[in-house]
Amino acid sequence: TKKLKVKANIMFRVNPGIEAHTHEFIRTGAIDSKFGISKADLDKAVELALTCGKLSLIGLHSHIGSQIFDVKPFCAEVEVLFKMMSRIKKRFGIELGELNIGGGIGIAYTEKDKNPSIEKYASEIVKVLKKFSKRYDVNLPKLVIEPGRSLVGRAGVTLYTVGTVKKIPGIRTYAVIDGGMSDNPRYILYQARYSAFLANNMKAKKNQMITIAGRACESGDIIIKDIKFPSLKRGDIIAVASTGAYNYSMASNYNRISRPAVALVKKGKSRVIVRRETKEDIARNDL
Amino acid sequence: TKKLKVKANIMFRVNPGIEAHTHEFIRTGAIDSKFGISKADLDKAVELALTCGKLSLIGLHSHIGSQIFDVKPFCAEVEVLFKMMSRIKKRFGIELGELNIGGGIGIAYTEKDKNPSIEKYASEIVKVLKKFSKRYDVNLPKLVIEPGRSLVGRAGVTLYTVGTVKKIPGIRTYAVIDGGMSDNPRYILYQARYSAFLANNMKAKKNQMITIAGRACESGDIIIKDIKFPSLKRGDIIAVASTGAYNYSMASNYNRISRPAVALVKKGKSRVIVRRETKEDIARNDL
Repeated sequence: TKKLKVKANIMFRVNPGIEAHTHEFIRTGAIDSKFGISKADLDKAVELALTCGKLSLIGLHSHIGSQIFDVKPFCAEVEVLFKMMSRIKKRFGIELGELNIGGGIGIAYTEKDKNPSIEKYASEIVKVLKKFSKRYDVNLPKLVIEPGRSLVGRAGVTLYTVGTVKKIPGIRTYAVIDGGMSDNPRYILYQARYSAFLANNMKAKKNQMITIAGRACESGDIIIKDIKFPSLKRGDIIAVASTGAYNYSMASNYNRISRPAVALVKKGKSRVIVRRETKEDIARNDL
Repeated sequence: TKKLKVKANIMFRVNPGIEAHTHEFIRTGAIDSKFGISKADLDKAVELALTCGKLSLIGLHSHIGSQIFDVKPFCAEVEVLFKMMSRIKKRFGIELGELNIGGGIGIAYTEKDKNPSIEKYASEIVKVLKKFSKRYDVNLPKLVIEPGRSLVGRAGVTLYTVGTVKKIPGIRTYAVIDGGMSDNPRYILYQARYSAFLANNMKAKKNQMITIAGRACESGDIIIKDIKFPSLKRGDIIAVASTGAYNYSMASNYNRISRPAVALVKKGKSRVIVRRETKEDIARNDL
């Protein structure tokens, strides 16, 4: 409803109707989704954009999910988007110059995760881009991808200090740490799996199963359920790997816990890039 | 390991091994729990407290779960705690003066929720306290409860503004709001149910099913899935009821969304008690 003074370039977020096989809550490409313009509404949307006089439709954007280990769904997504571009070309006589296929390339959180290499992902995507460009008679568009997690996820490591270790004979051993769902809610949200190590003794023998639990007042405040780990004592440091994405960004002050500091580390040198929250920070906006 | 200068009173958080029938993630009383001293470890813990010379064990504390609609599990909890007090009296010759039975009294989020009245809860608890005090030959202790949600939960209402309304014929209608999991993660965490109303037209006829979805980049960012609701247009105000507990306290800056303001309202007068976060607040600790 704001009056545009100049013509603005827009990308359409479309819903390709593709469902990558992953956890329900991180699937975003299915028809039943809040995201994107449905295929059935595409013509109407293009017409609106073209006739309003202030918008220049330059491309399409979609996103089919997260933590995807198979390149095939991305290739299927590219084909659907080419079909849409072809339809727009035939019906409205415009050739779209940009294609944003979103993110979703999986990373390995544990040894079981078989994520595709970036090389494989890139070569497969370029191959189908060329193929569908010919098949659907549409110029090769500029390709945009959003590989956030796959760039920064594995660069992050979270360090926790062990507090109480609670052994329940025959049932489970809980190692309670000075963090948890307030800095990493991915287990309680998606039952996500992580790898972890005893940072102050990397060579220690893994002789027990433990569950690494957070300090918040929730049974679901778990970082890793049942992981093979060395013996632990109060003060030990646990390093949880691959916490560079969707951890700090999802952090909260639940139970009034301060969000931790973030440091960059390179070749033995470190620099704090996000300060640890203070109690003053947490109460700053309370009146 | 800190040296105490004076004798400190302590309460033991114990695990009564009782499981209130509620969502797995908000169950805290089962044996397999990070919370509380297990029955098997109770004697050892009491002995440690008594022999260290600096601690005075004054009572027991436990918590059996959240959103509990039935008073029976609380009564069972009280009995287990009395059995523990009786054991401690017989074995160590001390009478504990305080009993904290935790929280967990459910509130009604929707019309289907049949929560117990505080009167019923209180009279049942007092009845069993007296009964078990006699049965287990233990003095009536001071009773402490933690009824946080049942005091403040229904006092809170969250107001959202409607943005895009996306109708997917034959599938679902999404009303996307200017908030979501960043201010209320209870649906994505527990598939919690809420009631909601069209605040700017409370009498409007409920003529459709909608799903109220948040603005974050997650399919699971839902406030209410499938609720009967009036027709909606951009700018309408949706009021979500019973958001006074576990909403603002669990809020995050996911997607760099600012946490909303909180206002107290009484008899037509209002006062802001928590300021809305600014973009400066969000980036304050970035270096």
